[in-house]
Amino acid sequence: MSRLEGKALVAQGGGPTAVINQSIFGVLLEARKHSEVTHIYGAVHGVRGIKNEDFLDLTEVTTQNFEAVAATPSAGLLSTRDKPDVEYCKAIFESCRAHNIRYFFYCGGNDSADTCRIVNEQANEAGYELRVVHVPKTIDNDLKVTDHCPGYGSAAKFVAQAFAGANLDNRAIPGVYIAVVMGRSAGFLTAASVLGKKYPDDGPHLVYLPERAFIKKNFIADVRKVYDKYGRCVVAVSEGIVDDNGTPIISAFTGGEKDAHGNVQLSGTGALGDLLAAEVKAMGIKRVRSDTFGYLQRSFLGCVSEIDQAEARAVGEKAAKFAIRHNSDGSVAIKREGNYAVSYFLTPLSTVARHATEMPASFINAESNGVTEDFVKYARPLIGELPTLEHLHAPKVPKILNKD
Amino acid sequence: MSRLEGKALVAQGGGPTAVINQSIFGVLLEARKHSEVTHIYGAVHGVRGIKNEDFLDLTEVTTQNFEAVAATPSAGLLSTRDKPDVEYCKAIFESCRAHNIRYFFYCGGNDSADTCRIVNEQANEAGYELRVVHVPKTIDNDLKVTDHCPGYGSAAKFVAQAFAGANLDNRAIPGVYIAVVMGRSAGFLTAASVLGKKYPDDGPHLVYLPERAFIKKNFIADVRKVYDKYGRCVVAVSEGIVDDNGTPIISAFTGGEKDAHGNVQLSGTGALGDLLAAEVKAMGIKRVRSDTFGYLQRSFLGCVSEIDQAEARAVGEKAAKFAIRHNSDGSVAIKREGNYAVSYFLTPLSTVARHATEMPASFINAESNGVTEDFVKYARPLIGELPTLEHLHAPKVPKILNKD
Repeated sequence: MSRLEGKALVAQGGGPTAVINQSIFGVLLEARKHSEVTHIYGAVHGVRGIKNEDFLDLTEVTTQNFEAVAATPSAGLLSTRDKPDVEYCKAIFESCRAHNIRYFFYCGGNDSADTCRIVNEQANEAGYELRVVHVPKTIDNDLKVTDHCPGYGSAAKFVAQAFAGANLDNRAIPGVYIAVVMGRSAGFLTAASVLGKKYPDDGPHLVYLPERAFIKKNFIADVRKVYDKYGRCVVAVSEGIVDDNGTPIISAFTGGEKDAHGNVQLSGTGALGDLLAAEVKAMGIKRVRSDTFGYLQRSFLGCVSEIDQAEARAVGEKAAKFAIRHNSDGSVAIKREGNYAVSYFLTPLSTVARHATEMPASFINAESNGVTEDFVKYARPLIGELPTLEHLHAPKVPKILNKD
Repeated sequence: MSRLEGKALVAQGGGPTAVINQSIFGVLLEARKHSEVTHIYGAVHGVRGIKNEDFLDLTEVTTQNFEAVAATPSAGLLSTRDKPDVEYCKAIFESCRAHNIRYFFYCGGNDSADTCRIVNEQANEAGYELRVVHVPKTIDNDLKVTDHCPGYGSAAKFVAQAFAGANLDNRAIPGVYIAVVMGRSAGFLTAASVLGKKYPDDGPHLVYLPERAFIKKNFIADVRKVYDKYGRCVVAVSEGIVDDNGTPIISAFTGGEKDAHGNVQLSGTGALGDLLAAEVKAMGIKRVRSDTFGYLQRSFLGCVSEIDQAEARAVGEKAAKFAIRHNSDGSVAIKREGNYAVSYFLTPLSTVARHATEMPASFINAESNGVTEDFVKYARPLIGELPTLEHLHAPKVPKILNKD
């Protein structure tokens, strides 16, 4: 067991999730058990807050408050889109050294893991003992090594419930309904649209993922086929779909606004949905509607997977155990066992940093317009219980006036 | 008590809600208690199903199935956008007469009430005894006479939870966030965006309603003021906002597609949000995002107000009691009593038919960019319990390197 005495620091980076606060609480719960951790600081607005020493003393937070914050979506410590370069990481490290921070926990995606990796290297080079553990989080579910990412299950549940409801609506007043789901280059969240399907004719009937080229003529033919069969069609499409040259379908419509990570803005606009709806209208189908789930899927209050919630807290606790009890650096990862249980392990920061992963080919159907049973088997346990959904089962009454 | 023997017919019209199936179940529960009601038919796809005799025999439905359907959003009997004229109503009436239907229940908005009114007149003229009761339903909450409409509370809850979450997200990564809410000419649903506010700086900070002209320069000035104060801004805007000539702000963007009721298509497109976001970007604010809640707000699986659910069932039961026990025609209305209780009464069909209502002036602030405490007092009881939402309360740590 480590006897490295000093402060612990926790922060959150990137897009918030419904359960990211659980992970922070997990770190706090475990760290409070160790007397060598004298204070636990929380950085406000992620790495930017670390650089600027915008710290809150979480050791002073009541259990009631932290339990309530843990149950609240979005980032209680606030977040940032800053992606630190080496200089920025240097400032982070100096801030840690000045405050005698010896345990560094950063909750985020692959960019956050990379920040952890660089800060860890700088501490090693300076001969400053600093335990650095990355706590995984992303609704995109695109981190390497781990079976899945905390945050994904709750966002996937939102998407599943949204499509289950939209399908019922589309069934009640038929037409073509297209909804655009977040996920820049991994289709896991869009694929989750199928998880609320119950009856054979339930939508989404078509699912388009960023892992496969989006070919307009195939899309038109797919919609036509479903519409001819059911008299209606529900389509799930990833915001990140690209053409066969790899160009985002949306890019022509948003002026190509880029964030600090050099990524084109995909979310926060209805342009892609409207574009696809216009294509379907041009087929001569009159009632065509498109929605873009936008920020609701990661921030909606009151839609959380209980499994995701529990795991998010557990990765935070494990992060603190690995750092404080086991004196180790790394990224916490989840291993799936049986059907369905998990265990946690530590993987080197370099294995998670920077590069994201995509959906395995076995999760995508041969026609590139849907997902496979393998995906459903993988994702269904992650979203927990779904609300009641049932069709009416009643016999038809023979006609009197309009006899067939 | 009536001894009018025959069948009962129930149907649903217009946009589905989260609780419309509760109302159908309410009718069924009460009607089954009366032996003079020999069968209860449900028309598939509303008035179109009545005209075409597409009836299901609901008397054969199990209680388990109906309880589950009642808990399911959208219209279990399916719906229609058809707005019957006098000829169409004639076909409805003939269909009822052919099947010896003596109790007619139609769940919908003011158009559906008008259908009820016409069918009722035609039955009277023909000397055919037919009890006609309109069961109120609309997420827009724009029916006359009744204090509020079943369906509104659940949609309002979705909007409140969506904005509560979006506000947390906007707080974590600041910028301007604009979300477009349904409601063609009544602002009740957009106004519900404030019902999840808890802390003084919580958004939405600005709310634009269809009852007041949307003046671009005022909007720009409003956003500037909020952004300067908080460094961020959350805006709720109705899809139905109009300029000072009464022209929908969105109308230039959708090609003016109209439904059977002659209404311009407002929902199912992200155009209005994108337009407003572009205006804000032109102010020099970089991070601007817009979402359009679209069909989620009326169909999302798993977001329902328990109050709304109970009242929706009750109006169905009351409709059947008024028709069968009291031999009366009309529209069921809700009276608010105390804080908060309700009673139900029957109002003549003509008082609800055709014309919709708007938000009272006392619910809208003087600046036309927000709602009043009167609105909150009116609407808050209708959405029931909200999920946990709490900010972190922790003291700041003094800076060492960056001393102020």
